[in-house]
Amino acid sequence: MTNEELLGIAALNSWKLVIGRFEKHLDMITDEDLQRQVAPGRNRLFYLLGHLTAVHDRMFPLLGLGERLYPGLDTPYITNPDRAVTDPISAANLRKAWTEVNSKLTVAFERFTPQDWLQKHTAVSDEDFAKDPTRNRLAVVMSRTNHVSFHFGQAALAKQV
Amino acid sequence: MTNEELLGIAALNSWKLVIGRFEKHLDMITDEDLQRQVAPGRNRLFYLLGHLTAVHDRMFPLLGLGERLYPGLDTPYITNPDRAVTDPISAANLRKAWTEVNSKLTVAFERFTPQDWLQKHTAVSDEDFAKDPTRNRLAVVMSRTNHVSFHFGQAALAKQV
Repeated sequence: MTNEELLGIAALNSWKLVIGRFEKHLDMITDEDLQRQVAPGRNRLFYLLGHLTAVHDRMFPLLGLGERLYPGLDTPYITNPDRAVTDPISAANLRKAWTEVNSKLTVAFERFTPQDWLQKHTAVSDEDFAKDPTRNRLAVVMSRTNHVSFHFGQAALAKQV
Repeated sequence: MTNEELLGIAALNSWKLVIGRFEKHLDMITDEDLQRQVAPGRNRLFYLLGHLTAVHDRMFPLLGLGERLYPGLDTPYITNPDRAVTDPISAANLRKAWTEVNSKLTVAFERFTPQDWLQKHTAVSDEDFAKDPTRNRLAVVMSRTNHVSFHFGQAALAKQV
């Protein structure tokens, strides 16, 4: 493997590790438990799962990987706070959406060459990207990986209640 | 910048971003607030800060960057759960330790060439590293960055109480 390849693989492995751990955590949680709040008065696990699924689904257009799969999740799980909107999806279907979105993203990331990782994401203009080439896909995926970790830390609190 | 350099910089930027955000969060928290639990019966912010400082301090030997600065933090903040041991350090000194450890690590990371990032960490043998070159410094730093994010998510819950 070249240095470039190894550097790209580190990001891919980090993504897979975090997603895999969160998925194991979800497997231990019943659909009823998903209705629990991570702390009194805070977000339900269901909301966090919807939020992470919606944010990851947005990566398809953001990284130039195609159309979104679940645009209907933005209003209840990104635009609005928890419990402002009735859940438009069942627990079983939300779990399926989460798995589907991440599986498809992972397949795409696994095919990325180092050059693919370093391409600009679609939210930055050609001009701005020329000035700052660090605004690439790799930065987005590392940011999203840390975003999962952030909410995973919260979800872990609910589990041990 | 070469592709290799850009790939290394993505990891450095992710580390700096997460540490910087957590530091801003700490700046808004009083020493009294550090005694708050992130949720009823859970870790205090003080414990999380001690834990993250100790874990990061361990990166000096783990990444071959020299001796640890605060070995005394392991017993109260890694080996033992919260409140099992009396805090051996004041809030002011713990904040100083956190800043010092991360500043020194960041300076070292900023000097890393792509080849430096890809060197093995000291917890893996030469033999195992030959089989699996992904067990490098980059993997450690990405893992620690996500570890901060995990506990930052918890710390953020305490803040808004």
